[in-house]
Amino acid sequence: MENFSSKLLQAAVEEFSQLPGIGKKTALRLVLHLLRQDSGSVRRFSETMLQLRENVVYCKSCHNISDKPLCDICSSSRRDAGTICVVEDIRDVIAIENTGQYYGLYHVLGGIISPMDGIGPADLTIDALAERVAGSQELSEVILALSTTMEGDTTNFYLYKKLKAFDIKISVIARGIAIGDELEYADEVTLGRSILHRTAYDKASTG
Amino acid sequence: MENFSSKLLQAAVEEFSQLPGIGKKTALRLVLHLLRQDSGSVRRFSETMLQLRENVVYCKSCHNISDKPLCDICSSSRRDAGTICVVEDIRDVIAIENTGQYYGLYHVLGGIISPMDGIGPADLTIDALAERVAGSQELSEVILALSTTMEGDTTNFYLYKKLKAFDIKISVIARGIAIGDELEYADEVTLGRSILHRTAYDKASTG
Repeated sequence: MENFSSKLLQAAVEEFSQLPGIGKKTALRLVLHLLRQDSGSVRRFSETMLQLRENVVYCKSCHNISDKPLCDICSSSRRDAGTICVVEDIRDVIAIENTGQYYGLYHVLGGIISPMDGIGPADLTIDALAERVAGSQELSEVILALSTTMEGDTTNFYLYKKLKAFDIKISVIARGIAIGDELEYADEVTLGRSILHRTAYDKASTG
Repeated sequence: MENFSSKLLQAAVEEFSQLPGIGKKTALRLVLHLLRQDSGSVRRFSETMLQLRENVVYCKSCHNISDKPLCDICSSSRRDAGTICVVEDIRDVIAIENTGQYYGLYHVLGGIISPMDGIGPADLTIDALAERVAGSQELSEVILALSTTMEGDTTNFYLYKKLKAFDIKISVIARGIAIGDELEYADEVTLGRSILHRTAYDKASTG
């Protein structure tokens, strides 16, 4: 994929192929698609990316991506300030918001503790979380919703040690067999945990 | 995927998800990747796309994407002006150039005749090809390298009728079993054709 007849085309394909999961062939397909659009659409595409990068801010309270210093969730009076759900990144916030089952606030860590990748507690927003917990009158529960990897478990433990001195409940999200999944195909750890952490029938079916 | 905390983020994700084969989740992943880059990289990404769209031209001879009125291939003295290879779009030019086996010129049709999609001969660069053929002293062969769909066959036939009056050879690229493919998995049409259009052993092994 070296024989481009146009330097401009080649430059555009190279820019696109820097993106994760986009190879040279896909990049070329995307660039040729943009070329077929009218000039205004391409200008809009291009300016939207630049504006996002230049103008986006992170909420000073929960560190979620936001257009304002305090994000819509943190500044909403309809959210329950008694609960903070701790997540790894903004995609997790979107996923939980899409369930429509959570009305509390969030705290975006910006990653998890991972010595292999050189990410320690100081690289995450853990201190800011501790300050939030210390400073809040209403807070009663922190929900840890990190991934169940070794790094996630380490981070959970670190957060637990950091927050256990405060008079709040610390919980983790339920793990178990996904709804619709067959037991025989579930991995043993998940199935084992789902039996260990079984829920009272009346509670599970009404929740 | 509606609960974005930032209008800027939402706009960027929507722009990306307009691209072919990019869904909302992939778009979000790409946009978050761009957000993690420094501001200069995003500016370069953004400006490269815009410059491509504003400044790219199509070669006045072969209709390939180019930075100049006459593309590098058409203006090169090292290419054989005796042969024109007719292709559907620029990706085919890149694919053939990458083989390193062709030294002639190209003609990019911009598509193939497809009544179902409302594409007739007038929407393609067929008249320009006929003019090129009529105007060239050196031309001795036109190679048709279109896809073997019904539309490709129709276009081949249309081009053949249009060009047969000229004193040139009209050929199509060889179809057959791909190198390395097993006969038992080849489709019957391809295998049938590969037997019908068999090549002399000495010619095939030296070519």
